[in-house]
Amino acid sequence: MRALVWDGELRLKDVPLPEPAEGEALVKVLSAGICNTDLEIMRGYMGFNGILGHEFVGMVQQAKNPYLAGKRVVGEINCVCHACEYCLKEMPHHCLNRTVLGIQRRNGAFAEYLTLPEENLHLAPSNIRDDVAVFAEPTAAAFRIPEQVVLDAEDRIVVLGDGKLGQLVAQVLWLYTKNLICVGKHRWKLALLQDLGIKTAHVDDPLERGADVVVDATGSHEGFARALELVRPEGTIVLKTTVAHPTALEFSPPVINEVAIIGSRCGPFRPALDALAMGTVEVRPMISEAYDLTDGLDALRRAAAPGTMKILLHM
Amino acid sequence: MRALVWDGELRLKDVPLPEPAEGEALVKVLSAGICNTDLEIMRGYMGFNGILGHEFVGMVQQAKNPYLAGKRVVGEINCVCHACEYCLKEMPHHCLNRTVLGIQRRNGAFAEYLTLPEENLHLAPSNIRDDVAVFAEPTAAAFRIPEQVVLDAEDRIVVLGDGKLGQLVAQVLWLYTKNLICVGKHRWKLALLQDLGIKTAHVDDPLERGADVVVDATGSHEGFARALELVRPEGTIVLKTTVAHPTALEFSPPVINEVAIIGSRCGPFRPALDALAMGTVEVRPMISEAYDLTDGLDALRRAAAPGTMKILLHM
Repeated sequence: MRALVWDGELRLKDVPLPEPAEGEALVKVLSAGICNTDLEIMRGYMGFNGILGHEFVGMVQQAKNPYLAGKRVVGEINCVCHACEYCLKEMPHHCLNRTVLGIQRRNGAFAEYLTLPEENLHLAPSNIRDDVAVFAEPTAAAFRIPEQVVLDAEDRIVVLGDGKLGQLVAQVLWLYTKNLICVGKHRWKLALLQDLGIKTAHVDDPLERGADVVVDATGSHEGFARALELVRPEGTIVLKTTVAHPTALEFSPPVINEVAIIGSRCGPFRPALDALAMGTVEVRPMISEAYDLTDGLDALRRAAAPGTMKILLHM
Repeated sequence: MRALVWDGELRLKDVPLPEPAEGEALVKVLSAGICNTDLEIMRGYMGFNGILGHEFVGMVQQAKNPYLAGKRVVGEINCVCHACEYCLKEMPHHCLNRTVLGIQRRNGAFAEYLTLPEENLHLAPSNIRDDVAVFAEPTAAAFRIPEQVVLDAEDRIVVLGDGKLGQLVAQVLWLYTKNLICVGKHRWKLALLQDLGIKTAHVDDPLERGADVVVDATGSHEGFARALELVRPEGTIVLKTTVAHPTALEFSPPVINEVAIIGSRCGPFRPALDALAMGTVEVRPMISEAYDLTDGLDALRRAAAPGTMKILLHM
């Protein structure tokens, strides 16, 4: 099968069809989304080598579970051991022995086929098209935040970043409080949120400080410093940004202001799929373009270009 | 009066006696403690100029409150406005208009006299001597942690740093859980904690990872990186370290592991004074030496030398 393989260089290669292990399904990928994490991996993040990609929708080709066979599915990306201390503590996505689709010791979704444990799969709601279902994984990541932070309807929330993840975070948290503003660099991206009724500001606009919760979804080094400026004493910063390289930070301000900084990664698929199916999270305007897998190198280049939103791959 | 003044250079100077403002008491300082924060200020932290020092015990020379006049007192260091949004939200130590004794727009305790709002003063328990009462402020800072983090008796806690603050934090958290270890560089400092029955480890010893709570009280740049190695996924790092200069940090690990990082500053005096009075926190072995204020320059130099614990000034 064809696959986009990263091994220090990105190549479209012919590779053997993956063999599902015990408990795994074989999935024919229909569509996959390019995430900033894929681009960070190509800058050294996670030291990953293999087939990239972790946002996908596909058809189950082979599975033990008869309810899965032949169905259209999306999939959770952490594949866990069920035996380590974190699995036993019901924190499976921190499994010590985990593999992560297209990120950590497991080939990813930029290929014609992938394998995942059957337990990782969710049926894609029938009323959403492939290009929307692909957003299940990043939308779930946005729904992780209300699992971690108690959000009061009175809370003032600032979302930093108008990119793909910032937009999803803004839309999801908007379901919890209307006292929210998304701050970004691109007026056309902010306009997508304005169309949904969500308040936005340009980074150059003066911004009220003292927010209760600031989410850094900038994907850049500057996000955290900006978050520190905007959060109130004893407020919360949620970090969604993972970047490959270290950042020089002033560490005294969060100590003096007793800020809580919380890292946030993968989240629950169930509310994400509900929101996509019900349209309470609207992702279609975020799609910049779709490429055939054969043009995958161009697709990744385009995804890395400034001003691009979601780039999809069709298999 | 004589005072140790920092204005880019440290000098013992003759300065006018301070005039208490409305609501303030005049306090004759008996003894003061040198804190790492004083040393950080001399490296540029907070951009403070004025009389250094914020740990003290003194006699009230002049006060409206008849219960204070003539009494031996210790004092909270944040002087607040009672009118800003954080004062009104009952978060006075984050007052937007605060001055802080010897740290921010208010002359400190390395002087014969100081002024503080009467509301900041606490009577020193009669059974503790001056050199112990001086520890009220840093002990209160250690008691801030259980105000911020829910500590379960089952929690495994690692305290990084065997210096003054690390020792106080270890002793205070030891009151909450015996599943605690203090990690430091100096075997003789660790021995002080061992004498109290507290487990310790040398930084070069192999350490079990996966702690529920790690407190960084190292006062150095390396503390946070070490804390990240030792904390478990979804665990908590409490930051007590304030340093003058930025630190280059890998920000991906706390995001991936969804670690909560909480800054922690000043704490409640009441449990601190109780612990000092009852001997549940033992500070006397931590006193390295006392100097007369006249020898204050030597005292600060000594405090900055490696291997020193608490240096006191007697006025």
